[in-house]
Amino acid sequence: MTIKNDLLLKALRGEQVSRPPVWLMRQAGRYLPQYLEIKAKYGFFERVQTPELACEITLQPVDIIGVDAAIIFSDILVIPQAMGMEVLMDEGKGPLLPNVIKDEKDIDALNIQDIAQRLEYVSQAIWLTKKELNARVPLIGFAGAPFTILCYMIEGKGSKTFDKAKEFCLTRPDLASKLLSKITGATIDYLKAQVAAGADCVQVFDSWSGLLSPADFSTIALPYLKEIAEALSPLCPVILFPKGSWYALPELAATKASGIGIDWNIAPQMARQMAGTNITLQGNFDPTHLLLPPAQIKKEVQQMISAFGAQRYIANLGHGITPNVPVENARAFVEAVKEWKT
Amino acid sequence: MTIKNDLLLKALRGEQVSRPPVWLMRQAGRYLPQYLEIKAKYGFFERVQTPELACEITLQPVDIIGVDAAIIFSDILVIPQAMGMEVLMDEGKGPLLPNVIKDEKDIDALNIQDIAQRLEYVSQAIWLTKKELNARVPLIGFAGAPFTILCYMIEGKGSKTFDKAKEFCLTRPDLASKLLSKITGATIDYLKAQVAAGADCVQVFDSWSGLLSPADFSTIALPYLKEIAEALSPLCPVILFPKGSWYALPELAATKASGIGIDWNIAPQMARQMAGTNITLQGNFDPTHLLLPPAQIKKEVQQMISAFGAQRYIANLGHGITPNVPVENARAFVEAVKEWKT
Repeated sequence: MTIKNDLLLKALRGEQVSRPPVWLMRQAGRYLPQYLEIKAKYGFFERVQTPELACEITLQPVDIIGVDAAIIFSDILVIPQAMGMEVLMDEGKGPLLPNVIKDEKDIDALNIQDIAQRLEYVSQAIWLTKKELNARVPLIGFAGAPFTILCYMIEGKGSKTFDKAKEFCLTRPDLASKLLSKITGATIDYLKAQVAAGADCVQVFDSWSGLLSPADFSTIALPYLKEIAEALSPLCPVILFPKGSWYALPELAATKASGIGIDWNIAPQMARQMAGTNITLQGNFDPTHLLLPPAQIKKEVQQMISAFGAQRYIANLGHGITPNVPVENARAFVEAVKEWKT
Repeated sequence: MTIKNDLLLKALRGEQVSRPPVWLMRQAGRYLPQYLEIKAKYGFFERVQTPELACEITLQPVDIIGVDAAIIFSDILVIPQAMGMEVLMDEGKGPLLPNVIKDEKDIDALNIQDIAQRLEYVSQAIWLTKKELNARVPLIGFAGAPFTILCYMIEGKGSKTFDKAKEFCLTRPDLASKLLSKITGATIDYLKAQVAAGADCVQVFDSWSGLLSPADFSTIALPYLKEIAEALSPLCPVILFPKGSWYALPELAATKASGIGIDWNIAPQMARQMAGTNITLQGNFDPTHLLLPPAQIKKEVQQMISAFGAQRYIANLGHGITPNVPVENARAFVEAVKEWKT
């Protein structure tokens, strides 16, 4: 079925658009009262693992905010979970993996056989969401990037600096590359299954790659992002979002990805200069600016689009929307993009 | 008295040096067994406020590690404390300011009269340390930058994102600039007193400025860094270290500062290109790399110096040394710089 509003896919393919597409990272959840109602009734993994709930949550921002794309409601930690690690989610405190990876034996114990089957609930949620979307807008699938998943597998919880994970990568490069390759294989299978179920494009979140120096990024993060982009790009457009790794824009632009997400720590003009003109950029509104009055948000969105240009660009935030953003402000952001005129 | 080893001051003045000077951020404390002995006996503010203890701690890395500069043992939060805010330090968890700034009345209540007098214990520690140093190496004074101090005053504790502080700056720009100006005035008085007591140069730590977009940095952080550099530069060389704000290198290089600190998220060549050749760069070794074997550390330090060049450069970390670094590794870092040859 042809997608009615295919601005996102056009922008990723480098085709001419009348205005940039817009969606918001973490658009499904957190700040939406309709989501909070569901959250009050069901536990975190219940929401993630019940296709009907994940579908309902995924559709909310399409209906309420009017974004140009849906992104399947899930979590990057479903991968370590499917590989056999226990993952607990304390919604006040963040994730906890009680049994972290300590040595080669732990890596060998990770099960990557039939990963897509163990994550079939995601495929089912995608299938159901595609049906309910009824071709209104494209559906984005996603996964965490191997380095970011390793961070949680080694550290066992969130961290400002992920020192233990970095120490592991630096002092045990043999084990790190074994683990990263294993995660990469599982992630590719998982993303392929998402596309098979109906995802129109996929985004890979390397949320912690910005903790790495340019040199370390090129050995610990980039090769695996590249491998995923190569494996998925024949099937659908791929967006890579290595948060904080602005320094790698030239290398990222040389992968098979169609788009690169950027945070707000780089000026649009500089990002474009570093990435070149053959790739779509996505971002980079500071979520804190969504706390400004709607009129001010609209003004800043216009400035952002003017700075990036309307072509090969996807309007978005530079990181996930925060829970304290009023719904009308999120809507103002989306409306401002829709109102954009040269 | 002429300082015997004045490599640091020469590098900051842009004079020719035989090799780059070297010191380590957070060199006094944390990883040193001799510091941990003192820590076991005295509370945090007792160590900071007792000149004899602060002096002893400051001298340790000069004697044990052989760095080319001492930096006075203190804390950036002595400024909010001296302005009248309660500051608690739970050494496991970080700082806590129970009564945060909420409105204009709270800002008006901050006392900036005679700030240097209320911080006389720092001046005394500097005076004592200068005496004990006996002109072996220069002594660095320091303070937190106004934006970073505001972060703690508004948020009341550490944070990954300092959302509340950013929200305050964005939505109450009038109050934010009033508060930032007040902190700036106090900081200038405080740094001048440090120089009067004997500090040979000063460093300003903007530990959280990297949370700001380039546009926000230029309104919320830069003007106050500039003001401090203007006020202090007639007295001694000034190093600005706005962590994560690589994007502002050209603007920072245009201030009256003599040096700019950079973290490991930017390649040396790019930092030099953005900053130009008229300012000294300081950094940018990833502290996690100090967990590698000493031989590997030495190799990487050589590469770092080759990339920066030996002139207008100060070898240092890109952030504070972490508690888990073996002393011999810190020493290997310093030795590698001393062994450097073109």
